[in-house]
Amino acid sequence: MKQFKIAVIAGDGIGPEVINEGIKVLKKVAELDSGFQLDFTYFPWGCEFYAENGRMMDDDGIDKLKAFDAIYLGAVGFPGVPDHISLWELLLKIRKSFDQYVNIRPVTLLKGAHLPLVDVKREDIDMLFIRENSEGEYSGAGDWLFKGQEHEVVLQNGVFSRKGTERIIRYAFETAKKEGRSLTSISKANALNYSMVFWDQVFEEVSREYPEVETASYLVDAAAMLMIKDPKRFEVVVTSNLFGDILTDLGAALAGGIGLAAGANINPEREFPSMFEPIHGSAPDIAGKGIGNPLASIWSASQMLDFFGYESHGKIVLDAIEQLLLEDRVLTPDMHGTASTSEVGDRVTEIIESII
Amino acid sequence: MKQFKIAVIAGDGIGPEVINEGIKVLKKVAELDSGFQLDFTYFPWGCEFYAENGRMMDDDGIDKLKAFDAIYLGAVGFPGVPDHISLWELLLKIRKSFDQYVNIRPVTLLKGAHLPLVDVKREDIDMLFIRENSEGEYSGAGDWLFKGQEHEVVLQNGVFSRKGTERIIRYAFETAKKEGRSLTSISKANALNYSMVFWDQVFEEVSREYPEVETASYLVDAAAMLMIKDPKRFEVVVTSNLFGDILTDLGAALAGGIGLAAGANINPEREFPSMFEPIHGSAPDIAGKGIGNPLASIWSASQMLDFFGYESHGKIVLDAIEQLLLEDRVLTPDMHGTASTSEVGDRVTEIIESII
Ligand SMILES: CC(C)[C@H](C(=O)O)[C@@H](O)C(=O)O
Ligand SMILES: CC(C)[C@H](C(=O)O)[C@@H](O)C(=O)O
Repeated sequence: MKQFKIAVIAGDGIGPEVINEGIKVLKKVAELDSGFQLDFTYFPWGCEFYAENGRMMDDDGIDKLKAFDAIYLGAVGFPGVPDHISLWELLLKIRKSFDQYVNIRPVTLLKGAHLPLVDVKREDIDMLFIRENSEGEYSGAGDWLFKGQEHEVVLQNGVFSRKGTERIIRYAFETAKKEGRSLTSISKANALNYSMVFWDQVFEEVSREYPEVETASYLVDAAAMLMIKDPKRFEVVVTSNLFGDILTDLGAALAGGIGLAAGANINPEREFPSMFEPIHGSAPDIAGKGIGNPLASIWSASQMLDFFGYESHGKIVLDAIEQLLLEDRVLTPDMHGTASTSEVGDRVTEIIESII
Repeated sequence: MKQFKIAVIAGDGIGPEVINEGIKVLKKVAELDSGFQLDFTYFPWGCEFYAENGRMMDDDGIDKLKAFDAIYLGAVGFPGVPDHISLWELLLKIRKSFDQYVNIRPVTLLKGAHLPLVDVKREDIDMLFIRENSEGEYSGAGDWLFKGQEHEVVLQNGVFSRKGTERIIRYAFETAKKEGRSLTSISKANALNYSMVFWDQVFEEVSREYPEVETASYLVDAAAMLMIKDPKRFEVVVTSNLFGDILTDLGAALAGGIGLAAGANINPEREFPSMFEPIHGSAPDIAGKGIGNPLASIWSASQMLDFFGYESHGKIVLDAIEQLLLEDRVLTPDMHGTASTSEVGDRVTEIIESII
């Protein structure tokens, strides 16, 4: 029997609450299928751990995680710990240490999810964002000069390598080709006169290897507008780390809300573990109330099953979410329901049981 | 009699068509008021000029413009000239040479304009974006190393100076204070670990000088989502050059479309001319057809009147646009009308005549 080892970093705020429901769902799927087994190991890392130990994870945390097939992460960040510490020493550290250079974020309006736009058809919102996840604007390079003086100046340096740019664009072309959909690149060469000129050039180069894939290219500002005005233009989308961050949150607003938005941080070579996480934050304002929406976590769990090669199981989980949205309507307050986090998880589990 | 000298750079694509209508409106306003006079001087700069002369503007173009009170710009960019050339040698060159460090972009849903959101009330979309316009991500600094080799790497360096950051934030606080509205800062310190940590620090420092102004602070990704989900949170907004670029296009999609979105590039010290421009591009696909929407240009003209100290005239122009949207509905195809560019301009002019 196949066995997968999952490291759970539930993290801060609503992280533990929502991750619990995802685990509930994963356990149910594994229980109903005798073909594979999932083992969960819990790591208590995050801002509380930081408060006690002065660090966000164990010193050898990255080493400890190496042995796992996947990491399942809730949310990181809590008032009291500056974000640029909590994130860089946990979430971003994992993304970078494990070269999870592909961030996959579906921006698809599920059946039954709320459509916030007047002029757009439901089926028009069906995009797959492929975000560069290892470098670019998030390289962490920069400098803070002449601190406190009148000529103080702060540099933030985006770093776009040939390798990093080429591999994400190639991954996106492969995905578009496999799915038989168009590929749109989003950049900003008219203003970012080095990085994005380079990005466009690499996109152009790699596109020649994929004559069968239809392509388009938009400026990031135009893309932000068009995602609202005419989202059906976008099918598979490839973009930089920062632009992907912004546009997938925008996308979440179009596709049923941030409570539904899932993300996978993939190391395609499987040299290191990949990581699955809802794209929402720790939501300190509602933490501990048991009303965090677990659907994004559950969708991420579905992505994890896909990644393990159990796509049909991943699809069942997604179908269960759709059925919940469409028929059961057992939903948390952010989706105008009255259910608790665990009631939603329980209901999804029951639906899965009825489907399998 | 007061006299204002306006340099007109109609530019490329639909630029000349839409700018003509703005000038029509400005001339009418000046004609109906005996208190001031407007002089227009035309500069044929842009991509056609580039094709003939190998440069986007005269070599002493910046010097020539210095003598003017304002610059009225249509759009820059056309297929055949790489954007990073056409923009850097004309639009961005002017913004930077004349230290137009404040970019003011109203994101307000005018009466009669189309509301694309289901869950939001019309009056909830009423924001004033104040975008840093001289430095930051648009500093143009960077490097392209090891070109064509495997270890090729491209750097794009954001430059945030104490002076540049402080003055835009202070300008925003002054505006919020004057208008009695809240001020929201949009940044991204959790990922951009130098520039945006600095930005947040300066915002915090300057905010202490303005205890009467209510403040909020959002991450750019969260802001992109919340502008769609809950736009009424945002009143006056201050943000960086790149984030302002992206979010004001997003805002345009919410506030009636890009055909309505106006922008002013201000040098508050009036040491150099300020520049007024629609925020849309040159739209090569419809250029020459006489159907470009002139309303954004006309709104920019209204901003110019405000800047000259004729706020009541600026308001009349805006009122005329609202009346057109609400009652006359003489609109270009992008707004589902059948009128031509000049028919829209004519109608706005007539309405102004009837109001004054
Ligand atoms: C928490 C933050 C650093 C992160 C990012 O910007 O990548 C988050 O917004 C995301 O999109 O996963
Ligand atoms: C044309 C381009 C350089 C410009 C910008 O990015 O600033 C435009 O998009 C704008 O917003 O005025």
